[in-house]
Amino acid sequence: MEVIEKNRDNTSVSNEALTRLQEIQLEDIWRSLGDYRANYVRGFQSTQPGRRIAGRALTMRFLPRRPDLLTAIDTLAAEGDWDSRYYARAGEEARAGDVIVAELGGSDGGIFFGGMGALGIQLRGAAGVVIDGGSRDLAELVGETFSDFPVFARFFDVRTTSTLGVAWLGVEWNTPVRVGSTTVIPGDIVVADETGVLFFPPELVATVLKVADEQATVEAYERELLRSGEYRFRDVYPLSPELRREYEQRR
Amino acid sequence: MEVIEKNRDNTSVSNEALTRLQEIQLEDIWRSLGDYRANYVRGFQSTQPGRRIAGRALTMRFLPRRPDLLTAIDTLAAEGDWDSRYYARAGEEARAGDVIVAELGGSDGGIFFGGMGALGIQLRGAAGVVIDGGSRDLAELVGETFSDFPVFARFFDVRTTSTLGVAWLGVEWNTPVRVGSTTVIPGDIVVADETGVLFFPPELVATVLKVADEQATVEAYERELLRSGEYRFRDVYPLSPELRREYEQRR
Amino acid sequence: MEVIEKNRDNTSVSNEALTRLQEIQLEDIWRSLGDYRANYVRGFQSTQPGRRIAGRALTMRFLPRRPDLLTAIDTLAAEGDWDSRYYARAGEEARAGDVIVAELGGSDGGIFFGGMGALGIQLRGAAGVVIDGGSRDLAELVGETFSDFPVFARFFDVRTTSTLGVAWLGVEWNTPVRVGSTTVIPGDIVVADETGVLFFPPELVATVLKVADEQATVEAYERELLRSGEYRFRDVYPLSPELRREYEQRR
Amino acid sequence: MEVIEKNRDNTSVSNEALTRLQEIQLEDIWRSLGDYRANYVRGFQSTQPGRRIAGRALTMRFLPRRPDLLTAIDTLAAEGDWDSRYYARAGEEARAGDVIVAELGGSDGGIFFGGMGALGIQLRGAAGVVIDGGSRDLAELVGETFSDFPVFARFFDVRTTSTLGVAWLGVEWNTPVRVGSTTVIPGDIVVADETGVLFFPPELVATVLKVADEQATVEAYERELLRSGEYRFRDVYPLSPELRREYEQRR
Amino acid sequence: MEVIEKNRDNTSVSNEALTRLQEIQLEDIWRSLGDYRANYVRGFQSTQPGRRIAGRALTMRFLPRRPDLLTAIDTLAAEGDWDSRYYARAGEEARAGDVIVAELGGSDGGIFFGGMGALGIQLRGAAGVVIDGGSRDLAELVGETFSDFPVFARFFDVRTTSTLGVAWLGVEWNTPVRVGSTTVIPGDIVVADETGVLFFPPELVATVLKVADEQATVEAYERELLRSGEYRFRDVYPLSPELRREYEQRR
Amino acid sequence: MEVIEKNRDNTSVSNEALTRLQEIQLEDIWRSLGDYRANYVRGFQSTQPGRRIAGRALTMRFLPRRPDLLTAIDTLAAEGDWDSRYYARAGEEARAGDVIVAELGGSDGGIFFGGMGALGIQLRGAAGVVIDGGSRDLAELVGETFSDFPVFARFFDVRTTSTLGVAWLGVEWNTPVRVGSTTVIPGDIVVADETGVLFFPPELVATVLKVADEQATVEAYERELLRSGEYRFRDVYPLSPELRREYEQRR
Repeated sequence: MEVIEKNRDNTSVSNEALTRLQEIQLEDIWRSLGDYRANYVRGFQSTQPGRRIAGRALTMRFLPRRPDLLTAIDTLAAEGDWDSRYYARAGEEARAGDVIVAELGGSDGGIFFGGMGALGIQLRGAAGVVIDGGSRDLAELVGETFSDFPVFARFFDVRTTSTLGVAWLGVEWNTPVRVGSTTVIPGDIVVADETGVLFFPPELVATVLKVADEQATVEAYERELLRSGEYRFRDVYPLSPELRREYEQRR
Repeated sequence: MEVIEKNRDNTSVSNEALTRLQEIQLEDIWRSLGDYRANYVRGFQSTQPGRRIAGRALTMRFLPRRPDLLTAIDTLAAEGDWDSRYYARAGEEARAGDVIVAELGGSDGGIFFGGMGALGIQLRGAAGVVIDGGSRDLAELVGETFSDFPVFARFFDVRTTSTLGVAWLGVEWNTPVRVGSTTVIPGDIVVADETGVLFFPPELVATVLKVADEQATVEAYERELLRSGEYRFRDVYPLSPELRREYEQRR
Repeated sequence: MEVIEKNRDNTSVSNEALTRLQEIQLEDIWRSLGDYRANYVRGFQSTQPGRRIAGRALTMRFLPRRPDLLTAIDTLAAEGDWDSRYYARAGEEARAGDVIVAELGGSDGGIFFGGMGALGIQLRGAAGVVIDGGSRDLAELVGETFSDFPVFARFFDVRTTSTLGVAWLGVEWNTPVRVGSTTVIPGDIVVADETGVLFFPPELVATVLKVADEQATVEAYERELLRSGEYRFRDVYPLSPELRREYEQRR
Repeated sequence: MEVIEKNRDNTSVSNEALTRLQEIQLEDIWRSLGDYRANYVRGFQSTQPGRRIAGRALTMRFLPRRPDLLTAIDTLAAEGDWDSRYYARAGEEARAGDVIVAELGGSDGGIFFGGMGALGIQLRGAAGVVIDGGSRDLAELVGETFSDFPVFARFFDVRTTSTLGVAWLGVEWNTPVRVGSTTVIPGDIVVADETGVLFFPPELVATVLKVADEQATVEAYERELLRSGEYRFRDVYPLSPELRREYEQRR
Repeated sequence: MEVIEKNRDNTSVSNEALTRLQEIQLEDIWRSLGDYRANYVRGFQSTQPGRRIAGRALTMRFLPRRPDLLTAIDTLAAEGDWDSRYYARAGEEARAGDVIVAELGGSDGGIFFGGMGALGIQLRGAAGVVIDGGSRDLAELVGETFSDFPVFARFFDVRTTSTLGVAWLGVEWNTPVRVGSTTVIPGDIVVADETGVLFFPPELVATVLKVADEQATVEAYERELLRSGEYRFRDVYPLSPELRREYEQRR
Repeated sequence: MEVIEKNRDNTSVSNEALTRLQEIQLEDIWRSLGDYRANYVRGFQSTQPGRRIAGRALTMRFLPRRPDLLTAIDTLAAEGDWDSRYYARAGEEARAGDVIVAELGGSDGGIFFGGMGALGIQLRGAAGVVIDGGSRDLAELVGETFSDFPVFARFFDVRTTSTLGVAWLGVEWNTPVRVGSTTVIPGDIVVADETGVLFFPPELVATVLKVADEQATVEAYERELLRSGEYRFRDVYPLSPELRREYEQRR
């Protein structure tokens, strides 16, 4: 795609920052996203319920196969010396901390990969996969081997992409893609759990972490006040001017 | 709403009765509901799978916000000295054993509350929440803190009611409301688990408990007969006249 | 509902204004609705495709029937001397220019009326009906008799409300109701065609008509410029500063 | 149904073979199904997540009840001395290793049975139940008692088939039926888990097991190669000619 | 199917009766159907909007194709000397006044026929077709040629049943079938228009016609009273005892 | 998109050929599409029912707006001197015989244009528009002015893309796009009516026209035979060897 160039250095957000993001509830990240608050999508099934991931988006766009498109892709893959199966290419090119994000047609769309592809990508150090489409090998992906590598997909199916129905071809690698009503740009920070997925520019990470810290402190205080039973809910959440003052003094 | 007045004393059903109801499978309650059998709704996601609740309905009706409605509500709230955020009002007015029941537009509807609101309501002793709409803070609500306070909602989302899309306003407090194809009246008994939710008048509780006891005894006998392998299924369920006689004698 | 009182005089918007509104495309009304732009709903089937209506909302709220609710309603109807069937009541109380707006549970909801009820309401001079629910007698309602009385419903079905599935009861008359994600308040102006339905306060009518007039003039000019083939699209829509000047001079 | 006669001996596939099938992931069975690859259906909820079953199809077809059909069925049941409730009949006629497969109208369809019916069928030694329709008594079926007897259904509901909405009648016993877009023939091998359900003729079992064994060996080798980090993904999956040779030699 | 034998003489309902049924609105037939009121289905698209048909059901059941089923069907067709394509068979065996009713999997199901098949069946004198599945050649079927031969289908598509996705096979000819939540039995009377489809036993026709006549007379009287403007709606519909007396005297 | 280069001369298919394609039913084109048979999509609403169009695809891809994407697009538009509103750009760049094809997120997607944009594109000589998304100004587009310019969209709505919900940005101009499960490549031939839309390479046109001619002749003959009433359906469709011979001789 010609419209946007993102030369995002994949070290611009430290691994420590990613680890901290992984511990923060999506609502507490979303709060600081400003004009990127629309970049939230839900409706995925996770292979590792209870596991949250945070990483950098490695995106790919798929289109339904047609003969002339297939020829073009095969030619390009041969020229570029990459595998035209994008899950295989990701198994060679993904970097530590990447989250694969595949635009694949949603719940009526194509199937991205199965257990072997997942293993290849996991071994590259990727944090997980978000598929706006389907995956195979659910029974394998829910297992222990993949406990730190959740796959978020719209559906799981036993069929391969090339056997039944419409097959899909990877046509663009690490380019802006669409997931639901959200645009994902390569290098976006991705945070995902059962609540859904957030995508946002790395520049927002510092603010997100700072606000989340402050918020955690305020909310701990509010919870304490609520549990004391001495205050009306409305005076605690949000803090009344008076309680706000006490809070500020106590800090 | 002018159509119905229910001055139901919230002690008309004892806590012991509620505790017993909580142990009975929904099918075994439903059996005795007579003309209230239509008062069953399913399609909720529970934050505490495996946990059943029984309590008294504290209802609230929400409507999509519009400027003149917002002004009217704010005026009424100021006059009545209650918080126009109904989750906050519930955090001040809910009573022990209440189940909050919110009419909120269903799976395309509004968002009721998040973790702080849940804490406020839980601390009042409420048994749980049934939202015909959405909730925030799923990750928090599935945690230990809320293990005895399940939230049943149509969906979970990270957004606040006031930021994206249509916001909703609480417009009626403890009044007849609609949840799916069921009308809920303040003071109704509510029993909910992953199978769905039942709403029924407190007057039916005595019958429900009595029939459930009898049924449990008969079914235990039927299971015993089936396990013995000596009877045809059709003679056991329902009991043939002969086995019914044996059962009656044995009691 | 206690939350809002609307003593809207049903002559505050003249019949001439309603007639003019009826000739304006919904997009051209919507433009001037400001904070009421969310008050748009689509997804209805019209019995008179191609026919647009404009009138004043006479609202009614329905809830699924249950025995205690039925008793309460019947009592109230007897006391108030009105018919508990709300379509019958509308056949006695509707005024010229009214548009009946029924909250009835949407596409899984109840059935409001059939041909006889429609006739009764039509004879009162009402402009049409918007049902967030179903209607009977489609074959009759699409006929000539009702050519100036369109019914907009979520579905059409042959069954009566009392025979199969859940019946619904009218519980509130001319009170704020919900249609999709929109709140309708008694006396709201209603404009409806196949594109959907708009609801807005009568105070906005003057502005709507004024803006629509101006807009029509500008757009006629823009169309003329486009058809001339002498201008780039971007210079015409919106008018470039230069063309805007020419337009202003020409007026 | 007159179209097909299947006198499949229920010993044609050994219990050992069924046990081995139960350990194989659906994708690895599907691979060998050739023209029967379309015989895969997904979209069921399992009462025992994580549990896979393999068995022989005992099929039944249901139709919505109407008076003349009911009379006909009752007459036939009396003549044949079987219970017209098919779950009861299955509680008398099912054999060890059977999987009940009920065509029941899908997610808008009828309800097959509840806990007592499940117990009757389980006691006959059946492996489980696949319902293209609904079931009652979810809370009971998820319990310990049924840990080796999963029920796969489109939905779970508290209502009995005869009380609300349309009831359904069993009209054909052990005959070709439809489940989603798949035809199931009596005696078909059924393998089911959360990924979905496969149905295929017993003749394919030998090939399925052989191919699955070989595949498991190849894939173990491929995983080993991937984990070594010494090979490009594309050379491992599928094996490059060179690695294939090494693999063949090593065997 | 073994469960029901219907040797309904196709002259038991006269052509005159069918013609009269065709002129009656579905609601006015449904009224007299008693326990067959559930035999109503909606959700079809008609190729000839505004056209109602009445006829006798010639039913057929389809199942998704699989190799062994295909072999069995081909064998049976050869033995019986009929065409295994059921639309072709209907083009040879349908009788005047028949309405073809095909159970074909609903909106996700198979495709029954195209324009040539429609012509063949039309030329046999059939009244129309109800497909719980799809049809081809919409552009042809909406034309003049077929103005007296409406096709009611769940969807229209350009593909043939044998090319893409799952093909379907006719497996039972003139046997009880399912359309939505309704069972259709060969020889049932079928009445269909855009409002939906009714199926009922021929024995009910006399009552249906008689009641519809009476009803038409009463309703004409009620409409006259309403139009007079002299009566309250509630006194006219239903007729008050007094007006009922006047009506009886006037007849 | 880097993957495919299509330098299709827009005169490679003559206007006469397009005119002839416009007269052929979609099924009769689809027959000759070989491996491009999957390139069929349905589910659009047409503003000019009964009107079929044939033309050359001018494609555009949209993505949900986010601040950094908006900045990038605005920069590119300024550099390239085109309007970043793609409907406006099409109003300046579309050529006679073009069919605009917009990838816009489907039935939950964005809104492409309204009446003024439609006029601009129509005045360029374009044949029509296929939107995998929404349009405004339905009431205007169904009018006389646009009788030769049908718009096929997933939905119609009154809102502008920039006011409510998520706005969408045009990000790629005349590049491979996705419409449902079909990939459309710039310069593809597009044929659309209420039955759906076909997309295929211009190289297939000659074959399509030739086969359609032959087919029309055969089918006319078959219809004649059927109408004669002298042949069994199966001998006519397809032609029996004998009738095929007669047909060949007669030509």
